[in-house]
Amino acid sequence: MNRKYVHGYTERESVRLLDQATTLTEILHTDTVYPAGSNVLEAGCGVGAQTIILARNSPNAKFTSIDRSEESIRAARERVSSGGFTNVTFHLDDIFHLSFDDGVFDHVFVCFVLEHLPNPLEALQCLRRVLKRGGTITVIEGDHGSTYFFPDSPDAKKTIRCLIEIQAGMGGNSLIGRELYPLLRKAKYNGVSVSPRMVYVDSSKPDLVEGFTKNTFIAMVEGVKEQALRSGLMEEAEWDRGIRDLYRTTGEDGTFIYTFFKWKALK
Amino acid sequence: MNRKYVHGYTERESVRLLDQATTLTEILHTDTVYPAGSNVLEAGCGVGAQTIILARNSPNAKFTSIDRSEESIRAARERVSSGGFTNVTFHLDDIFHLSFDDGVFDHVFVCFVLEHLPNPLEALQCLRRVLKRGGTITVIEGDHGSTYFFPDSPDAKKTIRCLIEIQAGMGGNSLIGRELYPLLRKAKYNGVSVSPRMVYVDSSKPDLVEGFTKNTFIAMVEGVKEQALRSGLMEEAEWDRGIRDLYRTTGEDGTFIYTFFKWKALK
Repeated sequence: MNRKYVHGYTERESVRLLDQATTLTEILHTDTVYPAGSNVLEAGCGVGAQTIILARNSPNAKFTSIDRSEESIRAARERVSSGGFTNVTFHLDDIFHLSFDDGVFDHVFVCFVLEHLPNPLEALQCLRRVLKRGGTITVIEGDHGSTYFFPDSPDAKKTIRCLIEIQAGMGGNSLIGRELYPLLRKAKYNGVSVSPRMVYVDSSKPDLVEGFTKNTFIAMVEGVKEQALRSGLMEEAEWDRGIRDLYRTTGEDGTFIYTFFKWKALK
Repeated sequence: MNRKYVHGYTERESVRLLDQATTLTEILHTDTVYPAGSNVLEAGCGVGAQTIILARNSPNAKFTSIDRSEESIRAARERVSSGGFTNVTFHLDDIFHLSFDDGVFDHVFVCFVLEHLPNPLEALQCLRRVLKRGGTITVIEGDHGSTYFFPDSPDAKKTIRCLIEIQAGMGGNSLIGRELYPLLRKAKYNGVSVSPRMVYVDSSKPDLVEGFTKNTFIAMVEGVKEQALRSGLMEEAEWDRGIRDLYRTTGEDGTFIYTFFKWKALK
């Protein structure tokens, strides 16, 4: 089989899998596959949620997963070794002060990290330094402002705005998905291309209703209730109506839409 | 060539074309293709913008294009005949009082029509009557609430809310994209499936910057300026800032996102 055929087949297969995807992992990561022998930096691995997916999808690639929290590294290492994966090395390291030489990585992978940083452009520049010429960076981020749903609800929209404002107050930017094109260009990456990953959920997709709308998105919004009320962004009754209305979108005739942005670019 | 191979090839080809699409027509209509000899009803053809695409994409299908405006029918007929297409018959007819017998059409196509109707559910029910059992309905609608952009701007968002409210005031619903799943189910269609068509625009896609963001979307918003000011929805200075900020998203580092929903379902 020649490479071209294999490539075409893999692409087609990915599209088919994406169309049928019933979990967030399938939607975001089905086509994240690195060649055997390649050195991949996972920047900001956290507790390893993406690390095990990377290790499983590319069993013959070598991953270096870093995080600046020792506690997260410990949890990630535990998760990966319980999974039986041996192709990941963990390092306590900081994206802004990477301890690696220039150009040592074939690929860089960053997922749900830039949204938490006050200086995502600088992060992209630091990561570019350790990437070899011709290597790729893959960036995956959400955009909370991409959320809409049926039935529509001003209270529900307001709870989401609270989440956005609270994340902004901590120096992050949960609207970063729409901003990655200028950021990657300013950081001097080439061949910047996007593959938006819309998560469209209705009651014909019960796995996404549970796994995404309820247990990922609404759970995340509910997590800032105390902060939202304490800082006076919303009154409790209004908040409770908003959350009720978010759950309303998971009913038989409800729909819920959110978009992640998966970017690829070259050094 | 067996059918299965042809089918697989066509699907893959469609996906490739969609990924590379630089115009709205490519994004929405590349995969709207009807078999030779099939009878297709285009409901609400307007001045024929979609009719010529249908006629061109499926030269051996027979289209019956209806509209309730004699003037629109005249313009559509003129457009189609200047294009040299002979596979379309026009009828002055009303979706809610269709002059056709039950089950006479193999397929029904409705694009940018339901958003203008106060009773889209009833329209879908009327269209189902003239569709044969096992035939498909294709519905394409936008959702103005799916719009977001970089740089973000409260004034720009407010101009879009004006457009939504003005359309609602005329009995329409420009947020209908997110609502089509329950509508199609309530109208008793089966096998309801969606293919969201996100239009993602940045300065690397100049055809979409011009053809979609500026000349389709912003032009549409600008079209309601008088109504928005007259009805007191916005002050003129605020409106002008909003429009300026919409144009700002078409600059070198701007991005603009809008989603259409393309639905297919069976009788």
